Amino acid sequence: MTTAPERTADLYPTRGTEEVLIERKDPVVWSEPGTPGPIEADDLAGFERDGFLAIDQLITPDEVSVFHGELERLINDPTMRADDRSIVEPRSQEIRTIFEVHKISELFAKLAADPRVVGRARQILGSDVYVHQSRINVKPGFGASGFYWHSDFETWHAEDGLPNMRTVSVSIALTKNYDTNGGLMIMPGSHKTFLGCEGATPKDNYKRSLQMQDAGIPSNETLTSLAADYGIRLFTGEAGSATWFDCNAMHGSGDNITPFPRSNVFIVFNSVENPAVEPFAAPVRRPEYIGARDFTPVK
Amino acid sequence: MTTAPERTADLYPTRGTEEVLIERKDPVVWSEPGTPGPIEADDLAGFERDGFLAIDQLITPDEVSVFHGELERLINDPTMRADDRSIVEPRSQEIRTIFEVHKISELFAKLAADPRVVGRARQILGSDVYVHQSRINVKPGFGASGFYWHSDFETWHAEDGLPNMRTVSVSIALTKNYDTNGGLMIMPGSHKTFLGCEGATPKDNYKRSLQMQDAGIPSNETLTSLAADYGIRLFTGEAGSATWFDCNAMHGSGDNITPFPRSNVFIVFNSVENPAVEPFAAPVRRPEYIGARDFTPVK
Repeated sequence: MTTAPERTADLYPTRGTEEVLIERKDPVVWSEPGTPGPIEADDLAGFERDGFLAIDQLITPDEVSVFHGELERLINDPTMRADDRSIVEPRSQEIRTIFEVHKISELFAKLAADPRVVGRARQILGSDVYVHQSRINVKPGFGASGFYWHSDFETWHAEDGLPNMRTVSVSIALTKNYDTNGGLMIMPGSHKTFLGCEGATPKDNYKRSLQMQDAGIPSNETLTSLAADYGIRLFTGEAGSATWFDCNAMHGSGDNITPFPRSNVFIVFNSVENPAVEPFAAPVRRPEYIGARDFTPVK
Repeated sequence: MTTAPERTADLYPTRGTEEVLIERKDPVVWSEPGTPGPIEADDLAGFERDGFLAIDQLITPDEVSVFHGELERLINDPTMRADDRSIVEPRSQEIRTIFEVHKISELFAKLAADPRVVGRARQILGSDVYVHQSRINVKPGFGASGFYWHSDFETWHAEDGLPNMRTVSVSIALTKNYDTNGGLMIMPGSHKTFLGCEGATPKDNYKRSLQMQDAGIPSNETLTSLAADYGIRLFTGEAGSATWFDCNAMHGSGDNITPFPRSNVFIVFNSVENPAVEPFAAPVRRPEYIGARDFTPVK
């Protein structure tokens, strides 16, 4: 007799025959109240309530120079252009995104392990954490597209197999975010409801979804209702500022017709107690440079 | 012997073989200092300096309801759908713009002739004024495109034959302009330099340019320099707020992925002392519903 392997329960069904709204079944802040860490109690309460925490200066201007220089070095490196982990814009042939930068670059590895960074992630997730995804993004001006509304968790659950909402992202600005150049927009409070989307996941969806979303798109009706309930917050700030946001926060960005480019480094931390299993709603796993399978904690 | 008709000098050459920057040869404010009018002296000085004047409440909330109702009536009127003056979005088959609304609608005609509206136009232009163009715009959310950087005067000079910079626009918001739903952006001070663009005007350019610009587009280099010199101001405000802006202000708008639609009424006043002549840089005139040839002053 063979016993079938235990299958992790799907708390957040998505990509079925219809859109569904499900109350969040997981905490937002996982650490015990009063656990020491770099986030003040008020800010942690704000993160729990809103699903985000904006930091005016996470890294210093000198550090911004160093990391921006490293970003420039990587996107201009001919060997990176041939690397699967680089996303090249067809028209300009320029690199727009490089995944797994914490493995490619010692400097970005150190940034991920910096107590200001990983310390906040541990405090929010209440455990050791590993990097589920990291990337640098270069968004030029003069008409670069934005990214439509989505919950990251919806994708990470459906396509990467993260079982619970115990994942947090930080976006560190390496250029100034104006109110005009296509910055991050979040619906505050939206992280407390899971939006299971309609429609099956195409095979190799990830290749297309880096440019344009085909699956995991909320309906106009639901976005209207969420925006009416929660409003929309636009994040602005100097280079060196950062936005922490919950994995299930509904977010997106507009296009950027200004001449002001936007570059950032984006790191996703997942709790070691929430490792990826098989995808919940996709035929195949995404590549490991997009959804990690190495759960070694950041030390 | 036949004497050739006098040809109006072209003070602002454009659409030639290269981009040129020309210092503005016309005043911004044409009325004598101290001429009575609805604009306070400080605000008029600000308009001269910046090229725009934002009014928190040009029309009351009750009036907003009336004009928004009239807009809804027009865009849902089947006879308007068949009218050349209506611009219908191919995908949704919905009306996005109706030109010449001051001739189509008594209510919008009254708005154009309202002392709060035409009075400000006369004060800026220092003469009687006529409507060079009017339109209502309906920009839905969920991904509606914006409009790339341009100077209106560049087009009105090249394609409609306005000789001098003696023209002013007012955009009256009929819905709230958030910082997130693709509002108007202006480079303050940019109105003092004329940017003659590179490239000839295709015939029937206007039919395409309502959707996408092919001519009259500034180069990336010049936009970068202008934005560095002047910065970029995003206009937000309640329904009923208004932005007056000079005909040569460099402006544009981003896309709108929010669920918040944007509707406005847009009226362009030209001085009766600056009537349209033949186009300065286009093979044919645009239709009169886009660039008026009836110079009867608004009374």
